Amino acid sequence: MTGLFVSFEGIDGSGKSTQARVLAETLRKRGFDVIHSREPGGSPGAEEIRALVLQGDPDRWSAETEILLFTAARRDHLERTIRPALEAGKVVICDRFADSTRMYQGLSRGDLRALVDQLHALMIGQEPDLTVLIDMDPAVGLSRALSRNGTEERFESFGQDLQEKMRAGFLALAGEYPARFRVIDGARSPEAVAADVLAAVEPRLP
Amino acid sequence: MTGLFVSFEGIDGSGKSTQARVLAETLRKRGFDVIHSREPGGSPGAEEIRALVLQGDPDRWSAETEILLFTAARRDHLERTIRPALEAGKVVICDRFADSTRMYQGLSRGDLRALVDQLHALMIGQEPDLTVLIDMDPAVGLSRALSRNGTEERFESFGQDLQEKMRAGFLALAGEYPARFRVIDGARSPEAVAADVLAAVEPRLP
Repeated sequence: MTGLFVSFEGIDGSGKSTQARVLAETLRKRGFDVIHSREPGGSPGAEEIRALVLQGDPDRWSAETEILLFTAARRDHLERTIRPALEAGKVVICDRFADSTRMYQGLSRGDLRALVDQLHALMIGQEPDLTVLIDMDPAVGLSRALSRNGTEERFESFGQDLQEKMRAGFLALAGEYPARFRVIDGARSPEAVAADVLAAVEPRLP
Repeated sequence: MTGLFVSFEGIDGSGKSTQARVLAETLRKRGFDVIHSREPGGSPGAEEIRALVLQGDPDRWSAETEILLFTAARRDHLERTIRPALEAGKVVICDRFADSTRMYQGLSRGDLRALVDQLHALMIGQEPDLTVLIDMDPAVGLSRALSRNGTEERFESFGQDLQEKMRAGFLALAGEYPARFRVIDGARSPEAVAADVLAAVEPRLP
């Protein structure tokens, strides 16, 4: 693969989605062919699975079934969107990828991290070339998240204790994969954060 | 678990669905509490996943994504329908279970049997107490299958070569799990087949 695969991770309200969009716009202006995607979703089939998982009663699926559905969506996203783009030399920017499953299903819904990792190794395999973790104080992140609305608020209604656990989890994950992760302080102006994101991405551009 | 879990397997048109229904009716008449289910499906969530997989373009999902979706449906079916019934001492009769995935995804869509088995071990684990394989000459089974209609004909439109491969695959599977499988000749009257099915089930009734 000759392209570049960048994922954005962080707790809800960290600004990662904004930063993913800003990076996509910046790179497009520089002439790069950019695919800006998101998970769960990112391909027509994966978006249908996303709707199945995120809508309805929060207890509709067990954590294990949810992990399987997210992995099915990720497999479709990888096959239909990410890999073809990378093979064509494009830059793929993805708002959340497997690290979010490691955290939100593997950590917040029980002690399922090992299961998530085994399933990932078996069915996905692929990791981003670079994962940008937008680190954020949960109190700030939560107030940002609660100021938004949407039908898919399940994963954003967990409260501050969980956000703190997730923040610590993401930082620990960055420690597990230091070559892949870049941790960027999100508690600054969007412009300052965007400058650090771009500096992290630039040396890896195809 | 104190109940009994019986699955029915066989090629399309083998009569397995009829035999599953007849067995359920017979056991109910004898006073057993019977759950008659089917895969993919068998619980509200799993039925939604079934619709997602079986409807639309046959090439909509890769074999690997399809395996993940079927496994998600199976996990939900197991948690919400099968295990609670078995724990309550009921008889669960299921029209297809994991063996169908071993055959239809593991064998007919590529050499994915090892992947199916690894995923099953990781996310499902459970096997039926007894699997009734209704064995049938594919020429007979195919003519029966083609005489039916439905929106979910994907898995019934593969043709005779594949049906022969599936028959051989199911028989090989019965050889792999001899303690669990009973092979019953389906090329006889439904009454004769039902008598053999009942004879296989009776010694294991709770």
